[in-house]
Amino acid sequence: MYALAVDRMAPMNFADNLFRRVLELRNPCLVGLDPHLGKMPAEFEAVHGSDATRAEMAADVVRFFDGVIDAVSDLVPAVKPQSAFFEALGVAGVEAWEEVVKKSHQAGLLVIGDVKRGDIGSTAAAYAQAFLTGMRGTDPETLCDCITINPYLGSDSIEPFLEACKESGKGLYVLVRTSNPGSAEFQLQGDPTLSELVADAVVGWGQDLMGECGYSSVGAVVGATHPTDLAALRKRMPKAPFLIPGYGAQGGGAAELTPAFGPHFAGGLVNSSRGILYPKAKPGQHWKDAVREAAETMIAEFRALDLSPVN
Amino acid sequence: MYALAVDRMAPMNFADNLFRRVLELRNPCLVGLDPHLGKMPAEFEAVHGSDATRAEMAADVVRFFDGVIDAVSDLVPAVKPQSAFFEALGVAGVEAWEEVVKKSHQAGLLVIGDVKRGDIGSTAAAYAQAFLTGMRGTDPETLCDCITINPYLGSDSIEPFLEACKESGKGLYVLVRTSNPGSAEFQLQGDPTLSELVADAVVGWGQDLMGECGYSSVGAVVGATHPTDLAALRKRMPKAPFLIPGYGAQGGGAAELTPAFGPHFAGGLVNSSRGILYPKAKPGQHWKDAVREAAETMIAEFRALDLSPVN
Repeated sequence: MYALAVDRMAPMNFADNLFRRVLELRNPCLVGLDPHLGKMPAEFEAVHGSDATRAEMAADVVRFFDGVIDAVSDLVPAVKPQSAFFEALGVAGVEAWEEVVKKSHQAGLLVIGDVKRGDIGSTAAAYAQAFLTGMRGTDPETLCDCITINPYLGSDSIEPFLEACKESGKGLYVLVRTSNPGSAEFQLQGDPTLSELVADAVVGWGQDLMGECGYSSVGAVVGATHPTDLAALRKRMPKAPFLIPGYGAQGGGAAELTPAFGPHFAGGLVNSSRGILYPKAKPGQHWKDAVREAAETMIAEFRALDLSPVN
Repeated sequence: MYALAVDRMAPMNFADNLFRRVLELRNPCLVGLDPHLGKMPAEFEAVHGSDATRAEMAADVVRFFDGVIDAVSDLVPAVKPQSAFFEALGVAGVEAWEEVVKKSHQAGLLVIGDVKRGDIGSTAAAYAQAFLTGMRGTDPETLCDCITINPYLGSDSIEPFLEACKESGKGLYVLVRTSNPGSAEFQLQGDPTLSELVADAVVGWGQDLMGECGYSSVGAVVGATHPTDLAALRKRMPKAPFLIPGYGAQGGGAAELTPAFGPHFAGGLVNSSRGILYPKAKPGQHWKDAVREAAETMIAEFRALDLSPVN
């Protein structure tokens, strides 16, 4: 039997924690926490007004995500805050980021920080410290369980992140084949293509970070918008958990994602941000209920898929 | 005649401002502001102690860079704060980042934010807002004149940054060929190589952002550690300002960089971080004097190069 919530005192392995949460909740749905200020419900007056400070807007963002976390924390394995929108709010935004990460953890959710960082040597180590391992005085609850990283600079830029994961048991999703239309421009160049080369590197990077569940804590970002590549990259990276953006708002549907999961949902985590955060509420429906309903609709779509579970 | 300090009220074009500063100061030296806490002078007790809070350490970082800015602001055209080290200090670190950017501007320096961000659509737009254009309530002095970005996701991930530059007159340095040993792993794959493809894209991205000086506000990061590629990439991107890391600490010398500059220093900005921030002070010498001397030594090495100036 798997315990539902992540035991934060146990020696952690990201892949195992993810596997456990996904199997227990029987769905691979990831709620992307993108605070598009203009799309937030009307009750958040600071983000819709014209004279609020950034601190007031950031407070609205925290209150909004409090409601979202409350609405989905017993339904989905994980959330994915998107750093850019928080950073746009300056210092107050980074404070809000830490609050949202902490509250997600307290609700039992895994937190995947969508930060897409990438740099070399001691700089990469500083990013790993910022998001995964912390320093003296960092509240561990404000750190992520896993972050997204960019491989453009090569293996020596990934190494400090791998070291941080070995030390902390945390995880990484490496950008391999992104969901945007322009992703082909560089990612499909060459033979093997850049994304195939990165995929092969992901396999190597993940070798020392295997969980007991059979997956590694080093995963890959592969867009829902490329179903053929999704199947090919799954064969190329059989042990890598996939983070799959581009479902819903960007076009890809659930059935097309079947090849990503392997024999059970733990192989892939499918992100939806706008589709869950900003649904059209029915007359009289509270926005939190609309958020929960949107998450349930997505979950049902995946539970209806014909996968062969391992247990 | 060029005015020495950037006129922050004039409609700005990053390439023109950079060109003006570089020609006036007759050197292409860029001081990288990387707060390696352990390397800072002994007088900064919070970063060396074992019981300081992150806010106390961040205050030391601001005080240290106050001294550095004071020591070099009349010598060099620009500084390059490295975001990772600030982010590792959490909210207090981001507060320190804004302070350091603001003080650099107030000292007349151009500020290149080394953030290496990259994402798609509205997320890229949020990063541009965070660092280049700001939102309601952002102090414009805390924004950068230019940032580094990562091209892995393709042209549609660059577009929002280009839009932000058209609106604000600011600039970008795109990662093309980085200075680290592992950069060949992906950047030299294919024929044309990935870095050649990105270089060709940089030319296109920069076309609508040309300054009167003949350079574009869209530049390229090309490492000092690859002198042959530096010459070839200069031919491939004749109008792109280069940001050149890897001088000194990482191995490349001044003479090897000649091909990067074209007919004058404005073609390239050469970064030194540790070599200038953390020199060995002579007995009795104040650390700020050692910092200034290190900058002067680097400047002299470049002024000694045989370039044909345009004026």
